[in-house]
Amino acid sequence: MKIATLIFSGGLDSSTLLYKLIQEGYEEIHALSFDYGQRHKRELVAAKAVILRTKEDCGTRIVHRIVDISSIFSLISRTGHSLLDDSVQVPEGSYSKETSYSTVVPGRNLIFLSVGASYCEAHQIPDLYYGAHKNDQLVYPDCRSEFIDAAKITIERSSAWFPVRLEAPFEELEKSDVVQLGLKLKVPYELTWSCYEGGQKPCGKCPTCIERIEAFSANGALDPLATR
Amino acid sequence: MKIATLIFSGGLDSSTLLYKLIQEGYEEIHALSFDYGQRHKRELVAAKAVILRTKEDCGTRIVHRIVDISSIFSLISRTGHSLLDDSVQVPEGSYSKETSYSTVVPGRNLIFLSVGASYCEAHQIPDLYYGAHKNDQLVYPDCRSEFIDAAKITIERSSAWFPVRLEAPFEELEKSDVVQLGLKLKVPYELTWSCYEGGQKPCGKCPTCIERIEAFSANGALDPLATR
Repeated sequence: MKIATLIFSGGLDSSTLLYKLIQEGYEEIHALSFDYGQRHKRELVAAKAVILRTKEDCGTRIVHRIVDISSIFSLISRTGHSLLDDSVQVPEGSYSKETSYSTVVPGRNLIFLSVGASYCEAHQIPDLYYGAHKNDQLVYPDCRSEFIDAAKITIERSSAWFPVRLEAPFEELEKSDVVQLGLKLKVPYELTWSCYEGGQKPCGKCPTCIERIEAFSANGALDPLATR
Repeated sequence: MKIATLIFSGGLDSSTLLYKLIQEGYEEIHALSFDYGQRHKRELVAAKAVILRTKEDCGTRIVHRIVDISSIFSLISRTGHSLLDDSVQVPEGSYSKETSYSTVVPGRNLIFLSVGASYCEAHQIPDLYYGAHKNDQLVYPDCRSEFIDAAKITIERSSAWFPVRLEAPFEELEKSDVVQLGLKLKVPYELTWSCYEGGQKPCGKCPTCIERIEAFSANGALDPLATR
């Protein structure tokens, strides 16, 4: 049986990856979402909604786990981190190295992947997926190919008793390529969540909102969240 | 100022490493201990006692944090893992590949190091230490040099905004070498804890008890815990 674990935020990229794995014939998918004290906890509501819809759409067995690691980030300095500290303003405008640093959560993906690798090894699931893509690489070191390459080796060596393989199939794709794929796969983008503000509606101004809108636009489509 | 973060179990190796770092002139040490739902939670009591004594023994500023990640391992299958599941017997006798597998906790060090790296990056602490040593390598993949080498690179790349350096200075040392060093440094071994059973007194039969006793014996000394 083809089984995979997926790091699943309820956002655009990981939701597209979920549908891609189903298309590729995975018969059981363990989706791990994380409560890490993020400002936009709203994404966990989206994660549940996407999973619910996916189960309706297809016959794949999906196990959804929300892992509470907020205790980790409650120990860690939140100073200057806009996704962890409500007193720090989320930057507006497109991603740039200069303005988007505050949205970096130190070690976030390394922790997510480590937990994913542990989960895979314990449950004897050989494949671990995450949805890092090319546009993430500018600001987020833990989405860069050089990080992914090293993490693959580290995870494989950590799990030598039952080797786990890390896969990041979007690492060479632009966000617009991810949306192109997702539109074909009929991903329910209206249920996903990206906005860092985590309000009732997407703010439309933060880097991830802008990136989403542009990615749909490049495909001649409208972001269903932006048109509400 | 010389600052480090140390993965600190309250056991023999990490306690020796704590004293080594103090000897090397670290002026501030952040010791991270983990509650991961281990059978031998008793080690966290030992960790606190060692830290208290260390503060009395020297002027180094020590920040001790106990990180509760039991939620992670509560999601993970405990089947067959003697350190997580009380219904599985802890093996008796010296470490061997055949008998000691049940004491492996999948991904444990990778998770500890990931949290440590995140903590270091957020607090701008450049050095992250852990006390893996040569004898650990037989059974625990996440203590092997090939794992440490890969983890060093992964952590450095993950933390590119403030690069964190992983150090495992005992990786080439036998347990008896660690004890030799610790006896010189006057590590309060009577306060440390290793036994996997986590009872009132060490069982004297599990692999880590036997390894400890032998390591003291190789130095012509008695394990102060075994003589109680």
